[in-house]
Amino acid sequence: MTIGGALMRQLALNKAFTLMEPGPVVLVTTHDGTRDNIMTISWTMVMDFTPIFAITTGKWNHSFAALRTNRECVIAIPTVDLLDKVVGIGTCSGADTDKFAKFELTPVQAKLVRPPLIQECLANIECKVIDIIRKHNIVVLEAVAAYIDATRKEKRAVHAVGDGTFIVDGYKIDRKKMMASKLPAGVR
Amino acid sequence: MTIGGALMRQLALNKAFTLMEPGPVVLVTTHDGTRDNIMTISWTMVMDFTPIFAITTGKWNHSFAALRTNRECVIAIPTVDLLDKVVGIGTCSGADTDKFAKFELTPVQAKLVRPPLIQECLANIECKVIDIIRKHNIVVLEAVAAYIDATRKEKRAVHAVGDGTFIVDGYKIDRKKMMASKLPAGVR
Repeated sequence: MTIGGALMRQLALNKAFTLMEPGPVVLVTTHDGTRDNIMTISWTMVMDFTPIFAITTGKWNHSFAALRTNRECVIAIPTVDLLDKVVGIGTCSGADTDKFAKFELTPVQAKLVRPPLIQECLANIECKVIDIIRKHNIVVLEAVAAYIDATRKEKRAVHAVGDGTFIVDGYKIDRKKMMASKLPAGVR
Repeated sequence: MTIGGALMRQLALNKAFTLMEPGPVVLVTTHDGTRDNIMTISWTMVMDFTPIFAITTGKWNHSFAALRTNRECVIAIPTVDLLDKVVGIGTCSGADTDKFAKFELTPVQAKLVRPPLIQECLANIECKVIDIIRKHNIVVLEAVAAYIDATRKEKRAVHAVGDGTFIVDGYKIDRKKMMASKLPAGVR
């Protein structure tokens, strides 16, 4: 689908895990029945190629109530040019802030879930909550659709160290041949 | 402790999560009662600052039996110079291979767990298995000691994309001031 100037190319679902496996800081949008919200999350994990993901969050996070009730979210992958928005989103609360307005981000209607995509991000993954493991504050998500902005020049994601510093993606190394035996068909 | 030429500086446990949060490919050592083994894992997640980590693995992985029985492991953080060993370790099995010998890695006695540290890695985290969530193939780990090689010049970790390519750490951006309100004491 084309949204404003952005061409959101649909990404095959069996490649969606490649957006998450490198461990980027992500934005997660939710909808609580009335309003959209965004949180910044770096505690994430790929769990399957299908793809299934986990995020760690809990009731200390305003978005958790919407996740638990609405059981849907969108994981959006920001790039380095958006870092100050990402940090800003992570240091205020949806309880008293309209984060789309404050950080000038554009919500875009998703296809299969109620929370919106974020137009300014490199990629967006529509997800359904399939389990919440309360004992460990783990939310298990299944991706149902994924998009990547094919027109975007800046593609470098950012990795939180956790101490207030961030590491930007550097160069890429190809080991596809060495790894061929371990990669699912369609991903190689 | 000093091991060969490497100075393994003990890292405060409340900073150990900063080794994992950026999402690097890691090596995980186990001991099955007889032998040490190593697996390559990129499906990991920080779950708490204490620190608690998750990894996704299951019975398809030879190391899983040792993890389940021995309930200990070491997470070692390799850097880009070790990438071909990391990929090699991930594409053969401990069922028929002594990976320390094959990849010329040096096992170092850990302090609190039976599986060994890997001398050649930038950092090592001794972990106890505190839970295994079989339904989701999640192994929950608690770190009990962490070390970083203070003498190592190459510090760039590597991130698996999942399609046979890897992204090397690029430059670092400091947002400690913006994030001060969200960081636990001792980490800022």
